[in-house]
Amino acid sequence: MKPNLRRRLTAEFLGTLLLVATVVGSGIMAERLANGNVALALLANTLATGAALVALIFTFGPTSGAHFNPAVSFADALEHGLSWSETLAYILAQVFGGIGGTILAHAMFSLPLVSLSRHVRSGPAQFVSEFTATFGLLSVIWGCSRSKPNIVPFAVGSYITAAYWFTSSTSFANPAVTIARALSDTFAGIRPVDVPWFVIAQFLGGIGATLLFRWLVPNLPLGAKEVLIPHDSGPNS
Amino acid sequence: MKPNLRRRLTAEFLGTLLLVATVVGSGIMAERLANGNVALALLANTLATGAALVALIFTFGPTSGAHFNPAVSFADALEHGLSWSETLAYILAQVFGGIGGTILAHAMFSLPLVSLSRHVRSGPAQFVSEFTATFGLLSVIWGCSRSKPNIVPFAVGSYITAAYWFTSSTSFANPAVTIARALSDTFAGIRPVDVPWFVIAQFLGGIGATLLFRWLVPNLPLGAKEVLIPHDSGPNS
Amino acid sequence: MKPNLRRRLTAEFLGTLLLVATVVGSGIMAERLANGNVALALLANTLATGAALVALIFTFGPTSGAHFNPAVSFADALEHGLSWSETLAYILAQVFGGIGGTILAHAMFSLPLVSLSRHVRSGPAQFVSEFTATFGLLSVIWGCSRSKPNIVPFAVGSYITAAYWFTSSTSFANPAVTIARALSDTFAGIRPVDVPWFVIAQFLGGIGATLLFRWLVPNLPLGAKEVLIPHDSGPNS
Amino acid sequence: MKPNLRRRLTAEFLGTLLLVATVVGSGIMAERLANGNVALALLANTLATGAALVALIFTFGPTSGAHFNPAVSFADALEHGLSWSETLAYILAQVFGGIGGTILAHAMFSLPLVSLSRHVRSGPAQFVSEFTATFGLLSVIWGCSRSKPNIVPFAVGSYITAAYWFTSSTSFANPAVTIARALSDTFAGIRPVDVPWFVIAQFLGGIGATLLFRWLVPNLPLGAKEVLIPHDSGPNS
Repeated sequence: MKPNLRRRLTAEFLGTLLLVATVVGSGIMAERLANGNVALALLANTLATGAALVALIFTFGPTSGAHFNPAVSFADALEHGLSWSETLAYILAQVFGGIGGTILAHAMFSLPLVSLSRHVRSGPAQFVSEFTATFGLLSVIWGCSRSKPNIVPFAVGSYITAAYWFTSSTSFANPAVTIARALSDTFAGIRPVDVPWFVIAQFLGGIGATLLFRWLVPNLPLGAKEVLIPHDSGPNS
Repeated sequence: MKPNLRRRLTAEFLGTLLLVATVVGSGIMAERLANGNVALALLANTLATGAALVALIFTFGPTSGAHFNPAVSFADALEHGLSWSETLAYILAQVFGGIGGTILAHAMFSLPLVSLSRHVRSGPAQFVSEFTATFGLLSVIWGCSRSKPNIVPFAVGSYITAAYWFTSSTSFANPAVTIARALSDTFAGIRPVDVPWFVIAQFLGGIGATLLFRWLVPNLPLGAKEVLIPHDSGPNS
Repeated sequence: MKPNLRRRLTAEFLGTLLLVATVVGSGIMAERLANGNVALALLANTLATGAALVALIFTFGPTSGAHFNPAVSFADALEHGLSWSETLAYILAQVFGGIGGTILAHAMFSLPLVSLSRHVRSGPAQFVSEFTATFGLLSVIWGCSRSKPNIVPFAVGSYITAAYWFTSSTSFANPAVTIARALSDTFAGIRPVDVPWFVIAQFLGGIGATLLFRWLVPNLPLGAKEVLIPHDSGPNS
Repeated sequence: MKPNLRRRLTAEFLGTLLLVATVVGSGIMAERLANGNVALALLANTLATGAALVALIFTFGPTSGAHFNPAVSFADALEHGLSWSETLAYILAQVFGGIGGTILAHAMFSLPLVSLSRHVRSGPAQFVSEFTATFGLLSVIWGCSRSKPNIVPFAVGSYITAAYWFTSSTSFANPAVTIARALSDTFAGIRPVDVPWFVIAQFLGGIGATLLFRWLVPNLPLGAKEVLIPHDSGPNS
């Protein structure tokens, strides 16, 4: 019994909002406290983001599937998990949730509610990074959809923890989060002009992994129902 | 078969005591060793607190529900999990346990057993932070109450790990812990005069999330029994 | 079907050896790389120890119960899990395993195989710390013995991660490990003359928690069989 | 129903590629940001590697068993899990995947795609370290094969997190990864001339642990089927 669309969109909005509040807010906190030690700041930013993903996917997964990410919803639509109109609604909820998260983070740190980032993130190495980051993310999601739903939050949180460090872009891997981070001239920001290339790389990476896993795991759709599509894990699952 | 109230209050007292001993004690240790590097000190403080929550919720959950937090017990009463007189008893056990934790931490570090904090934590950004922190905490608890009880400790530990960094207040999110931290003039302290606003923001955040999830997850009460109310998870759960 | 005693003692010897090799070895590595930043060194030491506990308890738990700790074996004997002669054999295997771990760590870092520590760790605050650390450890073990065996490694690893920071002694909480660390004049060492007080505090803390949980959880012995006593968790557990 | 060999080799290739991209890439990122603080750089490198192992073993385990490591595939062949011709194919896929990972990491950080490392890692202490690291890794794998498949990724990720710090070699513990790291003149590199001794120590350590566990856990082969041999964990496992 799938929750109705209004509840599912609320979950996507709120989950993406809290995720972006974590990414942006922990970046602000880390930069303020780290006295210019960027490795230490990124370590704190990583720890907060990975941990938030574990908590938020467990919290909202049973309601909406906890995508929080247009590249994930799009891949789910490719596999017929979401209809295309649901996908569009999911993506809008994610984008507005992400922007809300930036605003909330700024409010919690007494900053102007919106500010355009001047953080340059461009060039082919960044494009390859974002393609790889999102390719890996969707690989993890499809690969784990055969396990129990209770595994996916740990696998995704762990993956992003690693990806913050193994890509030169610190692995945004999420178009809604990328847009939201363009509105924050802080540690986690990205120049608005660099957003389109990030988003293109992310969708291409997500589509690539989806096509690969269609071949790699032929019986995927069955397991996927348990993960990407809202499910009630119930007290005995 | 619910354990009797005396056992449940002992569990709440002891769990909150060990939680506060961790928060305050690891703050003292971290500040002593970090030579003024506040980001590093907070990283150690975060790691210790998140890990303690995992261990303590597993340990005392089957006896008392492992609330350790008046905002959680109050939310549970709103959902008819605890009676109002049980709730009052829980809150008293938590407050005295928290104070005991501060005293124990001071004893372990050869400090005066009680000292009033001079750490200023005030202003609207702190209020928004504590509202958000506790709103998120109760969202995680209600959202995960549909999963197995063995998931909640990880979700709560992960959430607080993130919240230490994404709020400007370092996410107290707990009235009993807030009172206990007012009695420690160390890294984790808070000026007594700032306590009331923190507590108000925390209760408001907790109530807000509870009302939201009442709508978001209509069949919540069933799953909640497994999580917030003491349960015997048993060897086969 | 319990494995025979020789296999169980081999598991206790090897597990304690690898645990101490981790504690001592990661301390040496951390101190060498940290350039005098003690907070950073302890953070690395903590991460390595907590992670090793998770891996080693999963590895050797099904064979011997994965005590690796005389205070745990003694508490288990109090609850009639081990006979007293088995307990003595367990303790000897743990002590010799611990000493082997120190020797191995020194070999891996090109140091003299044994060296007496000059690290002073004495005074009432240290005594209270070790009592508290071991009281907490046994509380976690007894509290989690009602959950599935697959939870205990995470709970114990998390608890020790926290306890390294919330006690002024960095939470040895283990007589065999304490003796082994006296033989290493490195980061993790302890002066031999300080060992007896640590060991006394540890046994007292362990006994205290065991007596408390005998009252707190009356039906403990049933669940304990699954955790502290060797079990074959099997592919379907 | 085991996936066909082409799918399994693709999974081994891709998993090893992403693992090495994490090890090498996070080493580059960490060294760039850490301003010469090697302890901090290794901490970031450790966190990324341990987290990647959790995510990647969950992702590819159901397809190929997620060995990513010739020493693991060889040990599996000793226990009759893989035929010797499958083992050879696995090892080739792992070696080429590893090299691909180095190239990808260099591409993501705008470096020449291949460069021979000048990082000296030699001497008896390094040999003992690699023997111990791989002995421990195979102990963890064989020891956990009696638990559910969902435990192995956490146990292996935790073990390698610890082993990065308790060995003086930072625990390569994997011949394919060792070869791939010889092709990267960055933080994680190893001089090509030091590779053979590392590989010999790794195979010896892996064989040693396999022989030990053959005695320690007589009924191992049954559980091993669930872990080292590809399995479909399915939505209800």
